[in-house]
This record gives sequence, C-alpha cells and structure tokens, in this order.
Amino acid sequence: MARKIGVIGIGNVGSAIAHHIIVQGIADELVLIDQDTAKVEADAMDFTDALANLENHTKIIVNDFSALADADVVFSSIGNIQLANDNQTNDRFAELPYNSAAVREVAPKIKASGFNGVLIVITNPCDVITALYQKYTDLPKNQVIGTGTLLDSARMKRAVAGELKLDPRSVSGYNLGEHGNSQFTAWSTVRALGHSISEIAPQKDISLSTLDQVARDGGFVVLKGKHCTNYGISAAAVHLAKDIIGDAHSELPVSNYRAEYATYLSYPAIIGKNGIEEKIQLDLTEDEKEKLQLSADFIKQKFAETIAQDQS
Amino acid sequence: MARKIGVIGIGNVGSAIAHHIIVQGIADELVLIDQDTAKVEADAMDFTDALANLENHTKIIVNDFSALADADVVFSSIGNIQLANDNQTNDRFAELPYNSAAVREVAPKIKASGFNGVLIVITNPCDVITALYQKYTDLPKNQVIGTGTLLDSARMKRAVAGELKLDPRSVSGYNLGEHGNSQFTAWSTVRALGHSISEIAPQKDISLSTLDQVARDGGFVVLKGKHCTNYGISAAAVHLAKDIIGDAHSELPVSNYRAEYATYLSYPAIIGKNGIEEKIQLDLTEDEKEKLQLSADFIKQKFAETIAQDQS
Amino acid sequence: MARKIGVIGIGNVGSAIAHHIIVQGIADELVLIDQDTAKVEADAMDFTDALANLENHTKIIVNDFSALADADVVFSSIGNIQLANDNQTNDRFAELPYNSAAVREVAPKIKASGFNGVLIVITNPCDVITALYQKYTDLPKNQVIGTGTLLDSARMKRAVAGELKLDPRSVSGYNLGEHGNSQFTAWSTVRALGHSISEIAPQKDISLSTLDQVARDGGFVVLKGKHCTNYGISAAAVHLAKDIIGDAHSELPVSNYRAEYATYLSYPAIIGKNGIEEKIQLDLTEDEKEKLQLSADFIKQKFAETIAQDQS
Amino acid sequence: MARKIGVIGIGNVGSAIAHHIIVQGIADELVLIDQDTAKVEADAMDFTDALANLENHTKIIVNDFSALADADVVFSSIGNIQLANDNQTNDRFAELPYNSAAVREVAPKIKASGFNGVLIVITNPCDVITALYQKYTDLPKNQVIGTGTLLDSARMKRAVAGELKLDPRSVSGYNLGEHGNSQFTAWSTVRALGHSISEIAPQKDISLSTLDQVARDGGFVVLKGKHCTNYGISAAAVHLAKDIIGDAHSELPVSNYRAEYATYLSYPAIIGKNGIEEKIQLDLTEDEKEKLQLSADFIKQKFAETIAQDQS
Repeated sequence: MARKIGVIGIGNVGSAIAHHIIVQGIADELVLIDQDTAKVEADAMDFTDALANLENHTKIIVNDFSALADADVVFSSIGNIQLANDNQTNDRFAELPYNSAAVREVAPKIKASGFNGVLIVITNPCDVITALYQKYTDLPKNQVIGTGTLLDSARMKRAVAGELKLDPRSVSGYNLGEHGNSQFTAWSTVRALGHSISEIAPQKDISLSTLDQVARDGGFVVLKGKHCTNYGISAAAVHLAKDIIGDAHSELPVSNYRAEYATYLSYPAIIGKNGIEEKIQLDLTEDEKEKLQLSADFIKQKFAETIAQDQS
Repeated sequence: MARKIGVIGIGNVGSAIAHHIIVQGIADELVLIDQDTAKVEADAMDFTDALANLENHTKIIVNDFSALADADVVFSSIGNIQLANDNQTNDRFAELPYNSAAVREVAPKIKASGFNGVLIVITNPCDVITALYQKYTDLPKNQVIGTGTLLDSARMKRAVAGELKLDPRSVSGYNLGEHGNSQFTAWSTVRALGHSISEIAPQKDISLSTLDQVARDGGFVVLKGKHCTNYGISAAAVHLAKDIIGDAHSELPVSNYRAEYATYLSYPAIIGKNGIEEKIQLDLTEDEKEKLQLSADFIKQKFAETIAQDQS
Repeated sequence: MARKIGVIGIGNVGSAIAHHIIVQGIADELVLIDQDTAKVEADAMDFTDALANLENHTKIIVNDFSALADADVVFSSIGNIQLANDNQTNDRFAELPYNSAAVREVAPKIKASGFNGVLIVITNPCDVITALYQKYTDLPKNQVIGTGTLLDSARMKRAVAGELKLDPRSVSGYNLGEHGNSQFTAWSTVRALGHSISEIAPQKDISLSTLDQVARDGGFVVLKGKHCTNYGISAAAVHLAKDIIGDAHSELPVSNYRAEYATYLSYPAIIGKNGIEEKIQLDLTEDEKEKLQLSADFIKQKFAETIAQDQS
Repeated sequence: MARKIGVIGIGNVGSAIAHHIIVQGIADELVLIDQDTAKVEADAMDFTDALANLENHTKIIVNDFSALADADVVFSSIGNIQLANDNQTNDRFAELPYNSAAVREVAPKIKASGFNGVLIVITNPCDVITALYQKYTDLPKNQVIGTGTLLDSARMKRAVAGELKLDPRSVSGYNLGEHGNSQFTAWSTVRALGHSISEIAPQKDISLSTLDQVARDGGFVVLKGKHCTNYGISAAAVHLAKDIIGDAHSELPVSNYRAEYATYLSYPAIIGKNGIEEKIQLDLTEDEKEKLQLSADFIKQKFAETIAQDQS
C-alpha cells in the first residue's frame, strides 16, 4: 500500500517537514492541513510546481481531514511562534493556551476521520500537548508520540561532535524529560570514541558543562538569528516517521507515556509501526533520576492545570 | 573529490535550496553566504542540528567567499521579495535596482575567490541579472546560467499534467524567453500521451488557452497565499545543479546566451559539467519566433539600461 | 501503509531487483520466493547482513506465498537462462516450456494468496508469459504487466544518447511489440535535441540503421560477456514498480493487453496504482504498423500454441 | 568536483558494489577494472542500459588505470572465491597465493596512475592483503583501509538485533581483529536497549554464546546457499566510501594499521576524507586483549610469510 502522511499546521515547521518528505520521496500521498487556506494551497501548488524537477512523485491533498483515515503517520506541527517570541524568555508555555485550544479543535477531527496510525506531536509545549492529543483522540498511548528531546539530543550530539571533531551520528546518548527548560542531558548515557563521555571529555580537555553550554549556545544562535527553528526539528520528525513506516524497531528518545511517572516525557523507546513498540529502562545516576522526576512533576502539573481549565 | 556547492542569498529560496541539498545529500560541502550574518548563522546551526537525524553528512561553511574557490556550482539566490510584493503587478523588475547593485558587490568577490565552476542565477529579473553576473565575473558564458523558464516549464507541465491526469515528468516541452511577463509556452514543443499537445488537447476537450490559464492561475495561488515562491524554484535549481555535477548532458530550458539574439534568454540547452555543453535549435512556429524576438528585445533593452546606469 | 513487494524467482534478475529495492529503500517489506530454498535463504541472510550499513530498514520474508496477500507489486523473475544460453541463437522461446510450466505452478499460489496488486512479469518470453499469468491468476488485465520493451527502449536510448553525447533520459521514444526478435524501434516516436530523430540524425551524420546496430551490439556485448542481463532489466522493473506504488501516472512502454491486437505486446501506457491506468494511441507510420502487426501475430500464435499444449 | 570511484575486480562483490553505487547515485564517475575484459564490458554495458530508468546519471569507464588518478576512493574486490570454496574449511587463506600475486600486479598500476585517494581493500585475507597494498602502493597508511570486521560487526548486529527484535542500527559495538577465523566480538563494547549487552542479554534469557552462534550460523546459511557473500560486504564497503567522500568523521571498525600491534587489524577508527582520521583506544577486557593479540600475531606472521615468499 502507498505510504500516506498527514501534516497539520503548515507554518515554518510543517512546511519544512513537507519539503523534506517530498524531496526525499518519503510518502506517496501527503495531506497538508492548515486553517490559513490560502497559505496551505499556495504551498501545495508550489510543491506541485516542483514535481517535474524531482525524482519522486507525491500526491498532495489539501485540507481534507477525511483523507487521514488511512494515513500511516500524522504530524501535528500547529504552533504560534509569535507568542513564544513575544515572551522574552522564549518559554514554550507561552504557546500553551493557543495550542491547547487548537488541539481541542483538531483532535476530534482526527478521531472522526478514523485515523488509526501514529500521531507525532511537535506542537509545544510538546509533552503536555502530546498528552492532550492522546486524551482527545482516544488513540492508544503507544500511537501518540511527541518528538520531545529527539531534537535536544540531536543538539547535544552536534555539540559533542563539534568539540570532538566527529560525525554527530557517531555520538550516542540522550537528553531526557520535558522538551523545555527542565530537560537535561543524561551524561551517563552519552558515549563517543568508544568510551563514556565522562572518560573521553577530560582526555580532550573538555568539561561536560562546556558541552552543555555549546549545545545551548547553538539554540540561542538559531533563536536570535531566525526567531524559530525548523530544519533541526523537521529532520527529527521525519526520522521518526520513517522508522514508524518502515517498522524499524529503532531506539529513539521521544516523548512517550511512562507509567512510573504517570506522564508523557522523553525517554528512549523502541519505534516501529505501532509507534512505541517497547519501553527501555536506563540505569540513570541518582542525580539524573532526580532531574527526571522534577521534569516529570512539572509536565504533570502543567497537564493537570490545562485539563482543569478545559473543564472549567 | 567532494561535491561543493555555494548558495549566495539565504532568503526563502536560498534556504529551500540548502534544505533540499542537505536532506538529499547532494553536496559534501555547502557554503552559505548572506549579508544578514545572524540569519545565515542561525540557518547553518539549524541545519547542523538536523545532521544527527539525516542519512548524509554535509559540511556547512558560512560567509566565506574564499571557500567558493573550488566549488562545482554557486547559486545566486539574492533577492528582495518585498520590493516585488510592494509593486502591485508583482513585476520582477521592481527588484532590479536592488539586485543589480547586489551583483556589482557580489560578483567581484566570486571572481576574487578564483571560482571556476558553474554559476546558477535565480536572482530576478533572471535574464538581465544572469547577463550582469557574466559581465562582472568574467566567467565564460557557458559557465553562467539562469534558471529562467525551467520553473515556468515545470508550471506548464504541472498544468498540462493536471488536466490530462499525468505525471508532470511525462509531459515534455518548453516555456521560452524571458523569465518574466514576456515568457510564453512554445506549444509546438509540448508533447504528452505520445502526441503533440495540439493533437491531444482537442481530443480531451481542452484548449491551449485553458492550459495557459491553469498554469498562470497556479502562479497566482502561490503568490496570493505565500507572497513568494520557493519550493518550485529550488527544485528546478537543484535539478540543474545535479545535472551539472553529474555531467549528465541532459536537455533543460534555462537562461543561456544565444548569439543570434545577442542576449541571455531561456532556450533549451544541453547541461553538463561545463554548464552549457551544446546549443539546441528548435523548429518554432513563426508566431513563437516572433514572441521570442520580442522577449529577447525586452531583455536586451533592460540589460542595456542597467549597464548604462552603472556607468553613469 | 507500508510498501510491500514480492519477487518470485531469485536468480540473476530477481536478486538484482531485490538489491536495488533494499539499497534504495523502495519497499518496507520484501518477500523473496524461490524453489531453491538454500539459495533464497542465503540471499535473504546476506541482505540482512547489509542492513546495519544501509540508510533504510527493510523487512525480508522468505518463501511465504501467503505474505503476498497485501503486496503492492509482485515481480515474476523466474527463468532458466541456461536454456536460453544453450540455444545458440539466444532465443527467448527456448525458455518457454520451462517457464510456462513454472507459471502454471506459481500463478495459482499467487491467486490463492489473495494478491490484488500489480503483477510485473519479467519472465521470458515476456509477452506470452504475461498473458499466461493473466489467464492463470485471473487478475484484471490492467493489473498484469510485462516489462516488455521498457528494457529495449532503454537500450535504444542508450545507443542514441551515446551517439549524440546525451543523457539517455533526454532521449524519448519507444521500442514496440514483442520483447523478442520481432521487436523494433518506432523511430517515428524517437526525439532528441528538440527534434524528431529523423531530422537530427542526418545533421549529426548518423543513420537510423547505425543506431539500430549500436543498440543491438550493446546487447551482444552483455550477452557475450556475462551470458545474462540483470542490471538493465532490474532498473526497468524497479522503475515500473515505483511508478505503480507512487501512482505516478507516468508514460512507459510495457507489455499490456491491447484489444485491437487481441494480445499482450509492448506499447506505451499510463502507469499508476492500478497498473495500466490509460491506453495511449500512437500515430505510427504504415511500416511501423505492419511490423507491430507481425509482432502481435507472432505473440498470439505462440500464446495459442502454449495454451493448446497445456490443454492437451 | 565530481565524485569518482574505482572498483578493481568485478566479480560477485565488485559488481554488487558497482550496482549499489549506480542505483543510489553515489559516484559521478565509476571506473570498473577487471582482467576479464568481456565480462567487465558486459557489466558496464548492462549498467549503461539501466541509466534511462534511474534517477542519477553515472559515467562509467572501463579498464583504464589512468582514470584512477583523481579518484576519491578505489576498491580492491579482486578475489577467487572458487579457491576459497574448494577448500572445505572455507579458509580465506586459500586465496592468498592468488590474491597476493594480483596485488603485486595491480598495486604498481594504481601507484603509476598517481592515485592519492583512499584505497579500500576487500580482497581476502583482508588484513594481509591490505598491508600488501600499502607496501606496494606506497600510499600513507591512513589511506589504505581494509573493510575487515565492518562486515563481521554487521553480522553481530544482525544477530543481536534479531534476538532482541531491534533495528540492527540500534545495536552498537565491534568485532575486532583479523577478518578471518581469529576475529571475535568484543562483547564489552556491545550495547543495546540503553545497556551493555552483558546486562541486557540475561534479562532476555539470551547468552552471549547463543548470539555468537546465531551470528556464525547466518554466515553458514549464506555460504551454503550461494557459495559467496556479496550484499553484506558491498553495503559495508559502500558505507565506508560514503563516509570518506563526505568526510563524515564517523566511527567504524575497519582494518587499519595499529602501531602497538605493528600490523593491520580491525579496530574502530574515525573515518574521513584522509581515510583514517583518528585512532580510538578501547577499554577491552583482559580476555579480549588476549584474543586481539593472538589475532594480531596471526596476521603479522602471515604477512611476513607472504613478503618472504615474494622476495625469495
């Protein structure tokens, strides 16, 4: 059967995802959905104008929720980056009221379509929004995933790889917890050059706090220069989608529901056609466990507040 | 040797080109140049944050003209779309004063780098700017190419394919002349379903003027909805670059210098590692020849005016 | 839904098809079927040993006809090249008794699986075998296609492109009829450099008979040097499969049932997810029509003989 | 500059490498060299017949050593699998006399071409032959690499991934030493599911000796069923070439010269455009160190014997 992917929210991130998919030929049918009809039709036409010069053919469908019925993967890339930018601390929670309202509008339409694939949530604040989508679509928890710290982990790998002069793909390890201010690199999981980073970094005269700083500074460079991020996140999101469609059973750190924390948060899991195929149990340090608990508590509280507001 | 590509002007088009190249792994080294340092560094960092989740590794270099010395291809995607949008008729010539000034600044830097590959010009008005680049870089004419009507031809193919329910790659033919208001589809060259379009269209109850209209309407949809075009043009530009680097000797309609018209204008040519490898001679109808002459005259006049202003 | 492809017959051609599919990531699930269990399990294990070093994940299933139930495309690449080689004239009909027996064995198993995708037949003699598969699987005629002269057309394009120093993809046109000795290039359909080949060849001091000879000589070089052909044919077959899965509606010359000739034979058609989506009607010359009729008569007669033998 | 790759020895492995490269568009120019002129010309023609149906254009050059002058990568896939098969234990050393003679013939021709890229040696016995190539081409040691245990590591990953139901790319770790009977999996380096394999295997009721057995059994299945291996090894070889051309600085276990063992043997290293960019130092167990020393001693002895014979 053809591969079918939906993208809801065709802003900076959604259009980068669509561009990546079309250019690489990752979907046979691509459903683009956005409330700004003129904009999404413009992007769709622009993509169609690209087809004569591309290697792969992609069928593009616009603003038809019913077309999601047999989609393999649907992305939520809804967002209002302006709200995040207006807020001087760039807090992803500045978008929460707007985005949670969007979920309450969109989720029932996804559900009504009969969609039974995997929903990948990019919309921020990612963990809370992922939990909301799961609640309002009624999809099994394994079929609703947030990109979470897959991006933060990529940034950590970029920083470590940069300092060690390596391919980022030759650095392993995870950022955990909230895709937000309480996230952290679980340094005990990071490995490069055949060693734990805690062994290799001192040999190279690098401290973990420097690596933390380099990773964070990269984020500031992006934020300051373009007021959004779209290529790093879209690469992460598409990677996830490919592993779902290909049933790869790969290990990726994404926002998934962890019963012991009673919340969605980012923790590595095995990814396949059912979304989360298997949970992983890391051996974190006491300090990392504490940070993760704090991050979990924060997400849980924000989710509870959001639900409470919804019901009031 | 590694494939090296430069992109000068990282706006909507330049960043879409860079995204396409990185996602598909088309270059080993990518040089991004823009006068807005914060923006180009942000895009470069964002692309670097994508690498951990991509299949190919791309080295990204920022704002270093000297790195163009051994590039295979350099794109000029400089532009000021705001100027074009402010102008209600969306005349590409609204950008000419700004863009021709940019060429006079950038071309000497390209030349100084020792670049001896193929320069692909997307900057509008494409044909005049291509001619200016050739003049100011002193590169041989075959090494300076404008994307020209490669995009217009793709739009024509999209329109014809849409009406005939075909893959746009199964429609052949060209739009010729200026990449601007005087361009036209040379219908005598268009073929689909094993026939000339003039035979097949009536059988399908379609008129060529309808096809013209559908192609144009698509452009309006893009313009109205997103105030720019980037995916269609970047696909065309990257297609051209791949055929140059791979020395494909493919036939594409691009803006190239035609001695009989004494100007750059779009006309199919054979594309390879030297840029234009061979000229093609079409059998156009009298009407098409006339339109092409008018288009050529217009470009020549605009080029002469621009040069005259430069020297005054 | 994941893309699923079956390959029946894992000899030189079948394994080249599987290799192409796995390396490029064209299927999510690949079903390999061959009567030589040890050989097909060896290839499957060898492919699995490749996965750690590839960009895409492919699930490989061996010798399970029931797994074809939900396949998009199934290839028949059964063959006994030894029989063809033993026969000094390399007549593809030397394989007919062996291969038609194979069809009678395999087709019911395909049918029993519930397969309802598109069957692509490479097994020679291609047109007769395609007709047999259609008869014995009871699939609609549009869902049973032979690769036919898609390979011969590629060889013609290689020859023309070689003489004109062009990318073979910049030559258009078709070889028609039987994928065998009665096939011919319909020169009236061949175009390059913006012209009909009959106009351009003399300008380049090339005769059509030289081009015919160059195309044929290439075939002899392959045959003499490796006693089989697999890369050209597998590229053709995979191209066809991609256009089917992607519902591209591209135009390709393949063996399809033409009612006016009451037989399968190669003639361009529009390819999509239903296999043959639309028939094309060429304007052939009288000479070409005659050759095609002869080719059709030959295929029909061979098919009738084969059926007669089956029933005796 | 275009990417140029040479393949010397177009047997089962060399042709699979060439097929992979052409299908994926990994080189712009591909030089195929084999002493069986008719066979290599047949493969080249067959590949050329594929081009009309592929996405990328590849220029193919046959039996011209001088064309290697500016190649990025040259593979040696010379071999005589018959010799290995005749020997009942499938000892790769059965091929040594034949293959070392081939090196003495081929290496001077590579040297004479002026080639200064990276030579990737697949020819068995891999470590000894790699050392011979380095000696006879006089290339710096970092520019001569054997694929070594990159294949054995892939097989180990396949086995571990199979038992744990994972993507092989989500298993990390290395096989070390000789690409031959003395190689071994350094289990202390193997990780999956966020843990060392020594922790995770018992949880899944799997013993390391079972994993060893599964990896080895896979090899036997390939050997028994097809009397050669080509897809696993070609994927490993092409992976290596891509990381060299892209200057990826990735970490891969390959046969490289380790001064402390005074021999070529497989040990992870950082791969980039200079071949070996950096050495890695693992923390092996005492048992693993002992096995590696034995493996090293064996290779050194075989190399010394070969050189002694050459000079006698």
